[in-house]
Amino acid sequence: MGKYSAVIDMGSNSVRLVIYYEAAGGAVYEVDNIKNTIRLGAFLDENNDITEQGIQEAIRVLRQYRQLCQAREVSAVTGVATAAVRNARNCEAFLEQIYQETGFTLRVLSGEEEAYYGYLAVVNTMNITEALTVDIGGASSELVKISGRKLAESHSFPFGAVTLTRRFFGHFSPTEAEIAAMEEYLRKEFSAYSWIKEKKYPLIGIGGTVRNLGKVHQKMTRYPFPGLHYYQMKKYQVDSVYHYLRELSPAQMQNVEGLSKERADIIVAGISIIKILLEYIGTSKFIISNKGLRDGVYMEARLQARNLPLIEDVVEEGVAMFMANYNVNVLHARHVDSVCRTMFDQLARQGLHIYGEEERRLLSVAARLHDIGRMINLGEWQQHTFYLLMHVLLPGLTHREQLLTALIASYKGAKRLQRLVAPYESLVSEADLQMVEQLGLLLLMARALDRTESQQVSNVKLTREGKCVILRCQGVDERSLEAQTLEEHRKKFKKQFGIPLHVKWAKTP
Amino acid sequence: MGKYSAVIDMGSNSVRLVIYYEAAGGAVYEVDNIKNTIRLGAFLDENNDITEQGIQEAIRVLRQYRQLCQAREVSAVTGVATAAVRNARNCEAFLEQIYQETGFTLRVLSGEEEAYYGYLAVVNTMNITEALTVDIGGASSELVKISGRKLAESHSFPFGAVTLTRRFFGHFSPTEAEIAAMEEYLRKEFSAYSWIKEKKYPLIGIGGTVRNLGKVHQKMTRYPFPGLHYYQMKKYQVDSVYHYLRELSPAQMQNVEGLSKERADIIVAGISIIKILLEYIGTSKFIISNKGLRDGVYMEARLQARNLPLIEDVVEEGVAMFMANYNVNVLHARHVDSVCRTMFDQLARQGLHIYGEEERRLLSVAARLHDIGRMINLGEWQQHTFYLLMHVLLPGLTHREQLLTALIASYKGAKRLQRLVAPYESLVSEADLQMVEQLGLLLLMARALDRTESQQVSNVKLTREGKCVILRCQGVDERSLEAQTLEEHRKKFKKQFGIPLHVKWAKTP
Repeated sequence: MGKYSAVIDMGSNSVRLVIYYEAAGGAVYEVDNIKNTIRLGAFLDENNDITEQGIQEAIRVLRQYRQLCQAREVSAVTGVATAAVRNARNCEAFLEQIYQETGFTLRVLSGEEEAYYGYLAVVNTMNITEALTVDIGGASSELVKISGRKLAESHSFPFGAVTLTRRFFGHFSPTEAEIAAMEEYLRKEFSAYSWIKEKKYPLIGIGGTVRNLGKVHQKMTRYPFPGLHYYQMKKYQVDSVYHYLRELSPAQMQNVEGLSKERADIIVAGISIIKILLEYIGTSKFIISNKGLRDGVYMEARLQARNLPLIEDVVEEGVAMFMANYNVNVLHARHVDSVCRTMFDQLARQGLHIYGEEERRLLSVAARLHDIGRMINLGEWQQHTFYLLMHVLLPGLTHREQLLTALIASYKGAKRLQRLVAPYESLVSEADLQMVEQLGLLLLMARALDRTESQQVSNVKLTREGKCVILRCQGVDERSLEAQTLEEHRKKFKKQFGIPLHVKWAKTP
Repeated sequence: MGKYSAVIDMGSNSVRLVIYYEAAGGAVYEVDNIKNTIRLGAFLDENNDITEQGIQEAIRVLRQYRQLCQAREVSAVTGVATAAVRNARNCEAFLEQIYQETGFTLRVLSGEEEAYYGYLAVVNTMNITEALTVDIGGASSELVKISGRKLAESHSFPFGAVTLTRRFFGHFSPTEAEIAAMEEYLRKEFSAYSWIKEKKYPLIGIGGTVRNLGKVHQKMTRYPFPGLHYYQMKKYQVDSVYHYLRELSPAQMQNVEGLSKERADIIVAGISIIKILLEYIGTSKFIISNKGLRDGVYMEARLQARNLPLIEDVVEEGVAMFMANYNVNVLHARHVDSVCRTMFDQLARQGLHIYGEEERRLLSVAARLHDIGRMINLGEWQQHTFYLLMHVLLPGLTHREQLLTALIASYKGAKRLQRLVAPYESLVSEADLQMVEQLGLLLLMARALDRTESQQVSNVKLTREGKCVILRCQGVDERSLEAQTLEEHRKKFKKQFGIPLHVKWAKTP
């Protein structure tokens, strides 16, 4: 039996509840995720107290969350609150009243803690060692410098999308002068922190503003990949969304595809933070993280339970999780992976391909997850594997890498590949597809070599002998299911690697 | 922990192993399915003994199956053998040798048993009360008459696709005279069984010949639905595939899309059985079953364990299985279903829709399975629900019904519906889509009414008052998440049902 746990994140713009399911086998996934834009940051009176109306709004929403948690029998709820609550004079009384009326204990995070949790979310879901991150909230923005996967520097700036909008903008679309004043302010704020100036680091964005920026750009460009996490933008693309949005009237804003209606009034101020930051850093590379504060809070507990500071290898962790989640025969999957990598290395030594570590890793991930589609339906399982690998979050992989992995894992032949890849053409090159065909064939061969899923083929050796390549397999003879299945793929070898393949079988060494 | 079990089916044309996984929660699915066309029926000498070569072929394949079973730690293997073994003079010695060399015990089925298992597979996976079934094997064909879901009559005919081909056809494409002789023979055989003549019954086909016929026709017509089980053909469509194939040379046969290369030489004889049967019965309705003998064998054990003669309600059984398989919150799903059906009935009484039992059932299935896509990814879960409902086998539903269920379950709005349904247009009518929009909206409303998944809305009443419909909900007030979520859908009511909706909330009765 699995268990449920939850995180509540009370920000200045919205409150959110995420419920996670942890299966007995270790797999984790979100089962519910609900947001209420109550904009607590706007319920402050002249003394900086959260008003009675604000308190009642917060309690109303938390009571709903309480019901959701009870219905799922959530065993542990971690609640956190950020700048709006932190800065309120009646913070303590507010939290006490929430506890009395809803039973939830919210912990107020310091700016440093906010920064830390955002960092934790990014570093555990992206394959990143050096980067800057910015988490743009309603009333604060946290900047972190990541070096060697460690949090090297951090600072919490006292402005966010809501507070910038209230301070600099009037009621209508911002004027040139308003924009200029805000940008000037931001430049000055950042200039006090010289560690930000890391030209070679990408900037990774976190939070609702960032997600909305990414969604709007994906809609504008009809981006085909079905995911937001790890979406990459160039500086000029951020600028173009910014300039597009700041010209729109509030009414026009309501019709922008991908833009949340509840965020329309604060999005320009939010994006300006990214724009000015990218200028100040001197980088052109912006990456969107769909994981943020609440995921960091959740991960902290999971990591503590395992006595780990960080997930050691983000990609490997994800692969292990999906193998558990989709009931993969792990012995078989690992064997196929090992045979794939052996053949990959041997062919490289023979000069039969030019691929390196990156491709080898994609092949290895594909080899271990190729079977996950079977859980949907054994008929056409390769198609289901492709669908799953395109629609789950494979942490640590860029969209292009995820697509290539999905294509290798579900490879059956050239015609089918063309059909599958058609909607995603803009993400891959001709050379990528050639690589998919070659590595896809290696995977087909490795699967054939363990068709009985019993790991009998103990040794595989590819050598070049004259005008052909010989594959020597130990452990089964030519009457085995392995031999019979491999024969279906043997002839494709010449087309992919330009040289014919012959196979020799030996039951014993 | 789940467990694995397996069925081996040794026929005259092929041997097959299917491995089933039974999860702890009751879900069952196939994890492996492998076929070897060894054509045992052809390894008979002049004394009707299976030859040594035939025996060795069977043992070779079964040894492979043994490895597959060991690798999965299969706990129970049920092996059966049909006509080829049954008719062999050395049947007993053959089985003994198989046991000695592979450890498998194969049970020889009588013709009646063969007929029974085919019947069992059909009646437990289709929503059928009266029908004729024909299971076309290599060396025999079983006919069953189903009345009131019971096996009313059955007979095993001593001919199949392999034996008819050998008896009537020369080495090349069959001549007119050969075809005529075979058809004459079949007519005579059937004419001895007058219970076959049930004009109003559909004929349901089982076995490899039938599956191949269906696949070829699906390819010919570019049929969009991704499933073979419950594929419906008219008599003239069977005839057209038959006439098309009998004109082809063996070389041309190899390029027919959907046709198994190993079956190309016997397919014409196999289809002729269906053609002549349809003529003799006087029905024009032919339905393909993708489930057959081996599934019947597997089901018998499962049903015995539950002390049931048949699965009582095929659709309900499937729904329960998928709820378990995809970790659905069952209390929530059942509550949504109940609210859906209540609203459906109340609106019918007000004359606001014209749908009946059939649509009510689709709505009920959709209501209970609408959440299954969450397991893939909470983001865009409706799209994943649609994908899953289109690609799993929902027993008891026709393709059209399955498509409609998938559309209702994943309904979000008209635009998205158009996009999802586009590839399947040929399966539905304009009226179907209107029904999907109306029932889809009811499902959205019912889900809203249990948004906290805590079944607080205990009573729902829709009444027509003057020029609008009033929805009275008991159990929560207008500040609840239920009320808030329902408001998002309330306005769509007028568009779908032609009359505005107002909602009244009462926390207590």
